[in-house]
Parts: sequence; structure tokens; C-alpha cells
Amino acid sequence: MKQNIYDNPIFFEQYSALRETGVTANDFVEQPALKSLIVSLEDKIVLDLGCGAGSFAKYCAENGAAEVTAVDISSNMIEKAKKENPHEKITYLCTPIEELELQHQTFDLIVSSLAIHYIADYPSLIDMIKRLLKSNGEFIFSTEHPIVTARKEEISNWVKDGEGNKLHWALDHYQNEGKREQYWYIDGVIKYHRTISTLINILIEKGLVLESVIEPTAIPGGVELRPKLINEERRPSFIVIKARKM
Amino acid sequence: MKQNIYDNPIFFEQYSALRETGVTANDFVEQPALKSLIVSLEDKIVLDLGCGAGSFAKYCAENGAAEVTAVDISSNMIEKAKKENPHEKITYLCTPIEELELQHQTFDLIVSSLAIHYIADYPSLIDMIKRLLKSNGEFIFSTEHPIVTARKEEISNWVKDGEGNKLHWALDHYQNEGKREQYWYIDGVIKYHRTISTLINILIEKGLVLESVIEPTAIPGGVELRPKLINEERRPSFIVIKARKM
Repeated sequence: MKQNIYDNPIFFEQYSALRETGVTANDFVEQPALKSLIVSLEDKIVLDLGCGAGSFAKYCAENGAAEVTAVDISSNMIEKAKKENPHEKITYLCTPIEELELQHQTFDLIVSSLAIHYIADYPSLIDMIKRLLKSNGEFIFSTEHPIVTARKEEISNWVKDGEGNKLHWALDHYQNEGKREQYWYIDGVIKYHRTISTLINILIEKGLVLESVIEPTAIPGGVELRPKLINEERRPSFIVIKARKM
Repeated sequence: MKQNIYDNPIFFEQYSALRETGVTANDFVEQPALKSLIVSLEDKIVLDLGCGAGSFAKYCAENGAAEVTAVDISSNMIEKAKKENPHEKITYLCTPIEELELQHQTFDLIVSSLAIHYIADYPSLIDMIKRLLKSNGEFIFSTEHPIVTARKEEISNWVKDGEGNKLHWALDHYQNEGKREQYWYIDGVIKYHRTISTLINILIEKGLVLESVIEPTAIPGGVELRPKLINEERRPSFIVIKARKM
């Protein structure tokens, strides 16, 4: 059974409320980095893995993509996507990424925004992505940075002084890959910690060519609108990776 | 003026004494990882940047390399190398890596063990390496892990409880690349912090193809002989990278 927290009503409501503020780390840190790695969407056949409410799929459709297949495990999310971000060039599919069956389709660009840390079997995912990419096709994904997922403690990794000032980020258990359980609106949200070397080497071992790695900070203006994003300077929350099938 | 701590008599004596124990993180963590990335030394023309006392150069010469050029900034180290690790196939040169002039030579393999964090200008170094590599030549290097070099505080990054137990590793200032000054046998040892994305992207931007990234832990038996190496499981001290000139 694949994890589907986004169909938990409490999680869904609170997560949706956060994203709708429009001033999150997604808006000012992760999404700009992901988009910066896309050279062109013109006439591209795109697959979006973990599309959520469809805003990135819509971005692709509105910026020249020929077709966008956008996939999410959560029926809540797919419903919201169809309602809020419908587009004639987008096909929304409700399915776990791991069970995706696209027999005769291949893609110029496969994108995945902050979904891969929910996937238990990364090598099999990369096998699938290699199979689904056209020759010269690109795979661009963001995931939580290993610096952020490493430590097993449930408590915050910001160590604070008596006045609540952040002293430093606590890192531990880096080499111990696997499940991390955390409270995020609800109990028991499961993410998978992988080292940087695993994230990169599996891509290369499966035959993709690494093109870029970004550990993004906030875009100009982001810190003014969401001051805590200054902390991205102190430790990266995300890592964004681009690889190509040759 | 390039930094030359290894010609400081106090540093040189204490560093040499450490390495001569034969039970350091170099022996059980860094060197095995570096060597694991070398597929074959047979008939290879090798350049060793920051060769120290020459043990790695000797390893190359004894394992089939046709020629080894081994370079170090420290005359202490080069003297020691010539005395302790002489070999007809090795040429030892005393020069800062940045000022190396090898007009008509190119190499099958360029190796650098824990020297690159002393180099201020990484992009220029990679330019030089690209120029010195033959087509299909390999560049394999180890450096201090960005997780270890990031934080600016001079105090230890292991945060301990009242009984001296290590609670976690303190990380900070990750995105603030540049000089870090630390006490290591002597005051004012300067290293340069670079992010993982910088270490990797500069290689790619300069036209090399990334082949592997290792964040090594101790080899079997290492922890028994040097118990504190168990901490490499908690945070990596080193990162080892292999790239190829296509």
C-alpha cells in the first residue's frame, strides 16, 4: 500500500491552505530552481510525477508544451487539479507513481516536484523513468535535501537557545538510508532518506547523464515576503537534479 | 602566496606522526574510497596533485602505472616522499598545484587526495585539469565534505552532552562559500568551503562527465581499530568524486 497522506482530510485541508498562501518555500525556493533547469517547453511531451493540484502541469501547458500527463496518488489532489488547473493539453491521472502504466508513450521531459522522497524504491523509479524518456529526454526533479531528511529524531532539527534563536541545524544518521517518520499536520508521515551519492549514482548507473545539481536558496524578494526563508542560507531544504537520457 | 601549512615544522611533525600510526580516517575511509574508483592503473600516465609523502604515488607505481608525476607545495613533504617512497616511475615536483606548468604532458588519470579544499579557485583548477587530461582520461579526487566545512565556528561541530556523548553534528552557513579558518595542530589553517552543487556543477560546466560520487564510511575492520570512525555513519567527513573527459 503506497502512502497517500494527501487524501487524509486534515492533511489535505492544511496543506492546501499553506500552498494557497502563495508565499511558501515552494514558491520562492523550490519551484524557481526546478523551472530554471527547463531550457524550453516548446512542443514538449511532458510527464509530471506527483502533480498535486496541477499548477506546474498548467505552467507547462501554458508555456508551449504539446501534451502534459500529470499523475498523482491522491484523488483529492487530482480533483482539485481538474477543477483549478484544467487545460486541454493536460491529462490528469490518479495513480501511485510506482504503478503508473504508460505502455506506448515516451516523453521529452519528465518532471517531479517534491514527490520522490515519498517513494520507497528509488532504483526502480529510475528504471521506469529511463524507459519512459525519449532519447535525449530530460529528467528534472526536486526532493528534500538529504541534510534535512537524515536525522531520525522527531523533534525539530533547528537547535535553539533559550530565546528561540536558531543556533545551528542538527545533523545525524546520514548514512542510515530508509524510512523517516514525522509529524507534518498529521502523525506518521513517511519519507525516505537517501544520501546525495545514492541520489546521483543511481541515475548514472541506470544510464542517465547528470547535467546539474541545485541546492536552491530563495529568489530575490522571497525573504522579504517570507522571512524564515533566510534559513535556506544556513542549510538547504531541497536538492534539484537534472539528468538526460543519451 | 599559497598556503603551505605542511612546511610549518609543528604542523609537519604532528601531521606526520598522525599519518604514521596507519590507523587514520585516511587509511580506513578516504583512501579505500579513492582507490575503489580506479578501475586500472596498468600503463597509465598519472598525475597526483597534493601527493604529500608519496604513498599514493607509490601505490600507483607499484600497481602498473607507466609514469607518475607527483606534486606537492611542501618541500618537507617532497623530501619525505623522495626518501620514503622513491620509485623509478615517480617524478616528485615541489610546486603549488595552482602554479603547475606541464607544457607538453597529458595524463590518463589525475588524482587528488584531500588537497582541493586548500585551493581558493576551484573553476581555474578544473580548467587546468581538463587541459591536462587526455581524451577519455579520468579525474578522481577526495575533499572534505561540505557538511564538514560549512560551519564557520571554530569550536567542534559535534555537539555533546554533559558526559561528552556526541548528540548530533552542528551544520550552518552552508551556502556561504569561501574561506574557513581553523585550528589544526596550528592556528589559522585555511580551507575553502564549497557546496556539493558547486563541486559537481563546475566539473560539468567545464565539460567533464560525472561518473560517481562516494560519501565513504569505514572499511570493514576500520571501526575496530579506530573506534571513532563509527561517526562517519552519522555525518560524512569526505566526498570522493570521479569525472571523465569525453
